[in-house]
Amino acid sequence: MQIGVIGAGQCDEETYRIAFRVGQLIAEKGHILINGGLGGVMEASARGAKSRNGLVVAILPRRKEICNEFSDIRIATDMGHARNVIIVHSSDALISVGGGYGTVSEIAIALKEGKRVASINPPVVMEGMRVFETPEEAVDYCISDS
Amino acid sequence: MQIGVIGAGQCDEETYRIAFRVGQLIAEKGHILINGGLGGVMEASARGAKSRNGLVVAILPRRKEICNEFSDIRIATDMGHARNVIIVHSSDALISVGGGYGTVSEIAIALKEGKRVASINPPVVMEGMRVFETPEEAVDYCISDS
Amino acid sequence: MQIGVIGAGQCDEETYRIAFRVGQLIAEKGHILINGGLGGVMEASARGAKSRNGLVVAILPRRKEICNEFSDIRIATDMGHARNVIIVHSSDALISVGGGYGTVSEIAIALKEGKRVASINPPVVMEGMRVFETPEEAVDYCISDS
Amino acid sequence: MQIGVIGAGQCDEETYRIAFRVGQLIAEKGHILINGGLGGVMEASARGAKSRNGLVVAILPRRKEICNEFSDIRIATDMGHARNVIIVHSSDALISVGGGYGTVSEIAIALKEGKRVASINPPVVMEGMRVFETPEEAVDYCISDS
Repeated sequence: MQIGVIGAGQCDEETYRIAFRVGQLIAEKGHILINGGLGGVMEASARGAKSRNGLVVAILPRRKEICNEFSDIRIATDMGHARNVIIVHSSDALISVGGGYGTVSEIAIALKEGKRVASINPPVVMEGMRVFETPEEAVDYCISDS
Repeated sequence: MQIGVIGAGQCDEETYRIAFRVGQLIAEKGHILINGGLGGVMEASARGAKSRNGLVVAILPRRKEICNEFSDIRIATDMGHARNVIIVHSSDALISVGGGYGTVSEIAIALKEGKRVASINPPVVMEGMRVFETPEEAVDYCISDS
Repeated sequence: MQIGVIGAGQCDEETYRIAFRVGQLIAEKGHILINGGLGGVMEASARGAKSRNGLVVAILPRRKEICNEFSDIRIATDMGHARNVIIVHSSDALISVGGGYGTVSEIAIALKEGKRVASINPPVVMEGMRVFETPEEAVDYCISDS
Repeated sequence: MQIGVIGAGQCDEETYRIAFRVGQLIAEKGHILINGGLGGVMEASARGAKSRNGLVVAILPRRKEICNEFSDIRIATDMGHARNVIIVHSSDALISVGGGYGTVSEIAIALKEGKRVASINPPVVMEGMRVFETPEEAVDYCISDS
């Protein structure tokens, strides 16, 4: 599966730690991590996945050069916020960790598309998304069969 | 000004009536109406604007042919949800009337971009948006100087 | 009809004069002019259309603020070259005046979509496009029934 | 490097064979293959890369489900032709094999962006692109330092 991890480009240490663990779990279970390729939650989750030899795909708002150093594949959209929609379409399920307005836009599109969304400390709560306390629960929800 | 009107593609009569009035007011005050060009709130606001000889621009998810009949200009993006981002960038301020997930994505991107968002019966409430009871208040907020 | 006019953002005087005349003719015949909203051929055709009280729609690569002064409607895509595709989809037929690589990309997509393309001094010649000497012939080809 | 391979979604056997070989060479030399994820030249190059255990990234015009079976990563844009621009931005250099209008649009944008374009049997010839007879020459041009 391709699992999207979404959240803000800047975050506090606790959020960074959670996102890092989400990335580790996705890689440990053999899935591909998709994210937005910048800092904060994106960097943390990519770093976590790489610490477990996972594969990380960055879907970037601008050029290939503006990307964190933990991404294996760099998709350069030069489309700003519209790349959020591509992250959603490319993900079989999504996990949000904290987040701001951009994260809200991604959760909303994912729910509209009928995708599973697991959220830890979500910026808003909308019908259809599932809120969890731990990375383990969030990842399990995304990859479970039922 | 170019004022965006956002909301669901299907809506109840009360929402339709409100969106129609929003469209009328935008046209009466000499502004251009931008919306998504489909049914529900989009059709209602376009219809309202046309009843006052306003100018209506539809930013469509697919081809020119799939558009309500009250739009003067048809921008065909063939980009699905990514056209929501173009609606936001093209609007100086936005008014949401009711709405679902798609509307939430637009409000979120608009707030991230620092644009004014006036909402009547919003699907979620986020910091930075303003909630109003009437079309008059919503339109006034969008076009006021201060 | 919505007629797209495409060409380079910088051009010589002769090209500017031709593009200006193309814009005039589109407006005189009651059609809407779509272009990319920047300088050169875009500015010239917009200016020509406005000299005949035409309606000009700019589909911009970035923000609303970066636009020539002869555009009535500003569609801000923030998508760079991908906005070329939106210009094509939004146009019932297209006229190219001179042009460079960006123009080639637009002609190619238009032909792929089965749209009429009339070209004056085209940067390349591809099967399906029609090359003309004068603005009058190019506009006539685009708006004729047969 | 991320090397883009572009060409038509349907092609003759000779073109298929060339594209297959291009994919093999990209993988043999340790580079990532980017393409549009559909049939013809896209399938052939992906298949060639997989025959050498390469990594293949498909940047798709619509949903994840519409993709050839030789792609490791599926980027779903739901943007039709606008995904061509993302293929270009995501590629450090591009190789075209045969091709039609879509390929022309990609070559044009790549040249505009100053990227190297190596073409075998190109649909048009434009200033700045290099035409080669063999897959070996085309790949070497793309990955050489000078």
